[in-house]
Amino acid sequence: MGKGRLEAFSDGVLAIIITIMVLELKVPHGSELSDLRPLLPVFAGYLLSFVYIGIYWNNHHHLLQAAHHISGRVLWANMHLLFWLSLVPFVTAWMGEHPGSQAPVIVYGVVLLGAGLAYHWLTTALIGVHEKGSTLEQAIGRDGKGWLSLLLYVAGIGASFLNVWLSVLLYTAVAVLWFVPDTRIEGRLGKGG
Amino acid sequence: MGKGRLEAFSDGVLAIIITIMVLELKVPHGSELSDLRPLLPVFAGYLLSFVYIGIYWNNHHHLLQAAHHISGRVLWANMHLLFWLSLVPFVTAWMGEHPGSQAPVIVYGVVLLGAGLAYHWLTTALIGVHEKGSTLEQAIGRDGKGWLSLLLYVAGIGASFLNVWLSVLLYTAVAVLWFVPDTRIEGRLGKGG
Amino acid sequence: MGKGRLEAFSDGVLAIIITIMVLELKVPHGSELSDLRPLLPVFAGYLLSFVYIGIYWNNHHHLLQAAHHISGRVLWANMHLLFWLSLVPFVTAWMGEHPGSQAPVIVYGVVLLGAGLAYHWLTTALIGVHEKGSTLEQAIGRDGKGWLSLLLYVAGIGASFLNVWLSVLLYTAVAVLWFVPDTRIEGRLGKGG
Amino acid sequence: MGKGRLEAFSDGVLAIIITIMVLELKVPHGSELSDLRPLLPVFAGYLLSFVYIGIYWNNHHHLLQAAHHISGRVLWANMHLLFWLSLVPFVTAWMGEHPGSQAPVIVYGVVLLGAGLAYHWLTTALIGVHEKGSTLEQAIGRDGKGWLSLLLYVAGIGASFLNVWLSVLLYTAVAVLWFVPDTRIEGRLGKGG
Repeated sequence: MGKGRLEAFSDGVLAIIITIMVLELKVPHGSELSDLRPLLPVFAGYLLSFVYIGIYWNNHHHLLQAAHHISGRVLWANMHLLFWLSLVPFVTAWMGEHPGSQAPVIVYGVVLLGAGLAYHWLTTALIGVHEKGSTLEQAIGRDGKGWLSLLLYVAGIGASFLNVWLSVLLYTAVAVLWFVPDTRIEGRLGKGG
Repeated sequence: MGKGRLEAFSDGVLAIIITIMVLELKVPHGSELSDLRPLLPVFAGYLLSFVYIGIYWNNHHHLLQAAHHISGRVLWANMHLLFWLSLVPFVTAWMGEHPGSQAPVIVYGVVLLGAGLAYHWLTTALIGVHEKGSTLEQAIGRDGKGWLSLLLYVAGIGASFLNVWLSVLLYTAVAVLWFVPDTRIEGRLGKGG
Repeated sequence: MGKGRLEAFSDGVLAIIITIMVLELKVPHGSELSDLRPLLPVFAGYLLSFVYIGIYWNNHHHLLQAAHHISGRVLWANMHLLFWLSLVPFVTAWMGEHPGSQAPVIVYGVVLLGAGLAYHWLTTALIGVHEKGSTLEQAIGRDGKGWLSLLLYVAGIGASFLNVWLSVLLYTAVAVLWFVPDTRIEGRLGKGG
Repeated sequence: MGKGRLEAFSDGVLAIIITIMVLELKVPHGSELSDLRPLLPVFAGYLLSFVYIGIYWNNHHHLLQAAHHISGRVLWANMHLLFWLSLVPFVTAWMGEHPGSQAPVIVYGVVLLGAGLAYHWLTTALIGVHEKGSTLEQAIGRDGKGWLSLLLYVAGIGASFLNVWLSVLLYTAVAVLWFVPDTRIEGRLGKGG
């Protein structure tokens, strides 16, 4: 089964998710620079989520590049990932409109956690359709960065009971962690040809 | 006539349909977890429709993979399918905002039925442009699963006069039925090379 | 210059245009079948515009298939066509919300006329980058159907001063005229190989 | 690393940006031609921004065509460009709803400046992954047009303190400047093969 349409469909969904988030930046009624001030938390949330979707697109791009074939299970693992990511605009808007509130920060973390687990399952499903010791499997390795991210999401959710800004800091830390694209695969692909 | 752009355009439309549905999840005014409770029926509807669009994308992907060429009639059969699917966000939102009401459940069923028939016609149009006994024709076979789905949609529409939740159960049953991608085509493609 | 991205970008824009039109079908507040009745004119307009965008996509698909290369001028001629088509959701919604009013019917006709002229210029620009007597040029020929459409749009705009439903009838006639994909190109491509 | 998905994702995002801008053209409540008059500034802003996004798509198309490979840094430089462009619908709407106000004109200029700088960085990142003296590097050359644009954006922002229409004129001048696609690359590609 070819991976072309899986990539095209995922590109489409991710492009839409990343773009409709900007619709939450509601045009202010006033025309002064100061009228943009109430939008700052929404804008900050947009920036963080834009980087997150960008990271997922980058990693998805690297992951699929290392894959040679897919399966029905991979299609659904991918759809499951897109489901979680499709909730990002909703939670971003909720968090942006209630800066400092705990519940949106928790739900934001849960959605990131869901997406993180979904990505992990997609990786596992992809490795499963390749031979043992494939470039893909070697490239992913033990996936320490993936596990650390999941841990930081859980920590972020827990931290919201102390201070919601600590949660936001932890979520941002994961984004920084992944900002550099997945050099594991890039390296392997470079070596392997 | 190449099938590349047919796939690309369909991917685009399906990606947008599946993503704009999430816009119906209106950000709540409050910032408590309990403020999300009224959204639960909308969310459940979103989940069901997401799986439905996912199923259509998966099956479309398998169907077109088995096809070698298309025709003007296939282009319109495909457009017709996309038309019915484009109504899914509307009926999902209507059903989600009126949980337990009969009319939205009926209209949801009618849209699913329309999409199901349109998919059947697309299949027929595709088989029509291939030689007799093609991989595609063999793979589709008698299409028992397709006919059963149409029957279940009709049953679901009828059941709404007894109990709308029975209808929702029947619609969900069809989704479960198709959750596994179309192994008929996958099998044939695997065997045929 | 490759035509791949021109096709991909146009597919994306047309997919979005055709899909966001459905957002004008606002979910009714009531939950009765009769609550859908006020939506009927909007729905009828959606259907007509869906078919129109479908026709443009089909013809664009045929046109580009016959083209072998493009130019900067073609890129802008294409962008110009997309601009007019991007106005279709707006005029569709305006017409749907004011059934029987003259101004929306006129503006709808003007947008169709603009798109029709833009398509004609795109065709001319494409023929211009191909050698004389190319498959593309022969396939387009004298483009009687194209000119007839432009005439019917003008007639439709004029007819609105007598009866707006006559205008709608004329616009629908053009859609029916083009419903069959451009067999000129399909025929030539089939013969030419 | 292949450039196919980078192009596809960018096409998707740009197609959505260019299309959702039309959603700011809110359907008027009245049904007279005169009811469209208040929309004129919004429409003018839409037209300008449509041309801008069209220019970016054209230049992006030319730039990537001259590129043979990409890198993780290029992926992020591209994402950074898309981020600035994703803000165009917001600032276009703000400016269109407050014609003659200074703040929206300044912010519009800042977003154009951000996008212009991001495009410059993308160019630099792309040249960085190609060998010295590549077609790409020669084609870009000293990029006088790029620098002039940045200068005009800054001038436009400054001019808003005198007269906002002077700013709009300067922004429009940049659009006119780029309307012709990047003939530098087209020329080189034509010569180089």
